[in-house]
Amino acid sequence: MGRTSDARSKILSAAQSLIELRGYSALGVAEICKTAGVPKGSFYYFFESKEGLALAVLDEHWAAQRGDWDRLLRSDQEPLLRLRQLFEETAAAQRAGQATCGTVSGCMFGNLTLELSNQTEAIRQRLQEIFDAQVDMVQEVITAAQQRGDVTVVDTREAARSVVAQLEGQVLFAKLYNNTASLGALWLNCLALLGARAPEPEVAAV
Amino acid sequence: MGRTSDARSKILSAAQSLIELRGYSALGVAEICKTAGVPKGSFYYFFESKEGLALAVLDEHWAAQRGDWDRLLRSDQEPLLRLRQLFEETAAAQRAGQATCGTVSGCMFGNLTLELSNQTEAIRQRLQEIFDAQVDMVQEVITAAQQRGDVTVVDTREAARSVVAQLEGQVLFAKLYNNTASLGALWLNCLALLGARAPEPEVAAV
Repeated sequence: MGRTSDARSKILSAAQSLIELRGYSALGVAEICKTAGVPKGSFYYFFESKEGLALAVLDEHWAAQRGDWDRLLRSDQEPLLRLRQLFEETAAAQRAGQATCGTVSGCMFGNLTLELSNQTEAIRQRLQEIFDAQVDMVQEVITAAQQRGDVTVVDTREAARSVVAQLEGQVLFAKLYNNTASLGALWLNCLALLGARAPEPEVAAV
Repeated sequence: MGRTSDARSKILSAAQSLIELRGYSALGVAEICKTAGVPKGSFYYFFESKEGLALAVLDEHWAAQRGDWDRLLRSDQEPLLRLRQLFEETAAAQRAGQATCGTVSGCMFGNLTLELSNQTEAIRQRLQEIFDAQVDMVQEVITAAQQRGDVTVVDTREAARSVVAQLEGQVLFAKLYNNTASLGALWLNCLALLGARAPEPEVAAV
């Protein structure tokens, strides 16, 4: 059992790296297995199809990211500062990826949404669930901020969607220009979108 | 000459439709020629490679869209209302695309940025030029609004980038959920990002 689950995780990890570098459509199962160092037969033991693998990669990636978002967005900090930390850690993760592989790889969920959501309904649905969950988590923080009178926004759902949309748009630019500097705008843009003022005086000077 | 340039434009038009439906990587030259109804030999008469075709598709698509953006963003309306019209026409174009092919296909430039910008430097550079030009045009409007005292934002370049980022992020959601309703948030979000008030009383009630 140790060896077979090892093969599954090698395939998942190879697929995740290859998808980040080259997208999904350009990949073949043979190449994924070669990169993973496992025989092609193993692939179909663990995954029904390449689409099945893509769903597993999304699940795995979201399980890890959801853990990070939980830690950041459900901390005991002031609500708006939790959002600021989310942006800072997102920028740090993109910089770390750039340092490792030479280019900003962006957000896997955004990448696969634009590459694939029109092509496979199963992947579209999974990506919808992931973005719904992200918007839920951001909305929870905005609602907490609203209850404290920190924001003037009324529709917290739409506001949360707008914050995540701004995040995806700026990460798109970071990928396009291979430069994470644009992510520095996220925090003040978020405050503007929420009708909030910076919760700490020194932040306003950023 | 009539026939050859006809073949070129058939190839471009087939490639644009196929890229909108299925992205770039999933396509082959043979399929593009078959859809265009031209012999494969014609392809290499007009285009050096599939990458060369992608660049031509981007140029053609931007030439058309730049014309629309010019008309909207350089009209003699109040500056902020020009931005509102850009959002309205963007939403209308996405709705029209959805009515024609059943799904919201999103922004071709955003789609290809996330699919390809890490893979081919020529395409990355062309997409950078296109987004630079979009940000230039939006910045020009924001500067005009700033001169009239309609907005409080200071860094017009960063503000323009944020407006375009928000547009790309909301178009991503429209594609993901196959629903253009999220685009309705663009106008009020733009006002928030620019530190502006709605220029006409009835707009505030939207």
